[in-house]
Amino acid sequence: MTAQSQPWTATVLTLFPEVFPGPLGVSLAGKALERGIWHLDALDIRAHAYDKHGSVDSPPLGGGAGMVMRPDVVDAALASVADRPGPVVYLSPRGRVLDQSVVRELAGEPGLTLLCGRYEGVDERVLEARNVAELSVGDVVLSGGEVAAMLVLDAVVRLLPGVMGNAESGADESFESGLLEHPHYTRPAEWQGRRAPNVLLSGHHARIRQWRRDQAERITKARRPDLWARYVGQTDHEPEDDER
Amino acid sequence: MTAQSQPWTATVLTLFPEVFPGPLGVSLAGKALERGIWHLDALDIRAHAYDKHGSVDSPPLGGGAGMVMRPDVVDAALASVADRPGPVVYLSPRGRVLDQSVVRELAGEPGLTLLCGRYEGVDERVLEARNVAELSVGDVVLSGGEVAAMLVLDAVVRLLPGVMGNAESGADESFESGLLEHPHYTRPAEWQGRRAPNVLLSGHHARIRQWRRDQAERITKARRPDLWARYVGQTDHEPEDDER
Repeated sequence: MTAQSQPWTATVLTLFPEVFPGPLGVSLAGKALERGIWHLDALDIRAHAYDKHGSVDSPPLGGGAGMVMRPDVVDAALASVADRPGPVVYLSPRGRVLDQSVVRELAGEPGLTLLCGRYEGVDERVLEARNVAELSVGDVVLSGGEVAAMLVLDAVVRLLPGVMGNAESGADESFESGLLEHPHYTRPAEWQGRRAPNVLLSGHHARIRQWRRDQAERITKARRPDLWARYVGQTDHEPEDDER
Repeated sequence: MTAQSQPWTATVLTLFPEVFPGPLGVSLAGKALERGIWHLDALDIRAHAYDKHGSVDSPPLGGGAGMVMRPDVVDAALASVADRPGPVVYLSPRGRVLDQSVVRELAGEPGLTLLCGRYEGVDERVLEARNVAELSVGDVVLSGGEVAAMLVLDAVVRLLPGVMGNAESGADESFESGLLEHPHYTRPAEWQGRRAPNVLLSGHHARIRQWRRDQAERITKARRPDLWARYVGQTDHEPEDDER
């Protein structure tokens, strides 16, 4: 078996392994899982509990609400998967913010280990000791890392070779060009008195491409000035004749 | 039964109703679901298919990869839940970006209807006709709206009255103060030669509070200049004596 034929391997450390694969078991990701394009192991952190009651957490030093996952327990869980391929990532609102470029990066790794916190979070020392990267799925507070892990995996698995067929090529999606996506229209061409834009019925491919690009630019400019500024900055640096 | 006693109601329109509640069925959200604090209906969009084969999508007008969810089908699905409480939201990377303030806003509604797209997305006209708001869970491309819906609901349900006990109060979490969260430490106080910060063992509550605040500021400044700028901007506008 060559290295090429190893499936991309996701290892999830969680207190709730039973919720996996969950939404990752259907549709695109689920079919890819069945076909062996990727492999998912959801492992129970509680197997590494420090006592026979299965305890994994203790009150925070210094007082305060909630419980903190113990460094010894999390360290043992991480040690048990140290030979797995790819980076180790702790899902945390304090982490690097996930975006499509991070997703592409992770899809280029041979796999990924995701540590899901619960309660107030994980003792800082184990993150330092094992040099665990932190990744955030947005500026929100979740009850645990599990849904965040699903989001990361859903986005990454889409990009693995062989997952998307020609019918779903994805090059035209939001963010792949640095722009939000243009609006979509399908049959019926007229619905409840609303006609789809004429250009889409014209059969004129160059005009359709131009219209879609204009729409993507218009929507990005209006809805996400931050993305628009980055997009304009990038395209300014390219030596371009008017491509149109 | 008074209006107060109605559970917060989440309605999810999806092609994969079987993946719900999934991760929302365990832990904090799962216990709240069992206790009737919130209610979850995951409904199959395919029940509103336009033909007897259960078809919900057609190729995009103007050509291109993938399929688009038809306006007539999605409209029928939305019509079937038009009497549900709260706003109707389509999960889309083109939407308003979810953050903790949006989460708080949604938790203040009586409920929420979430439309999950699959394939290339939903025909634009039905979003216009029904004035559907768009909400994004980040600058990534997912295979569908289901994981995004789970993320929104996980964040919102945490904040519903009665969900978090005293042990999990949450006021100190990332973003609730506009800062990322301070590091957490728990027992053992010394682990693998790494001692927890002395101040946390001091029993001096004011100093502990100050240390945590300093750490939260340090981490926010280092990791998220964007949040830090907003935080500094906000506190500048408050008429404050040195609170310490």
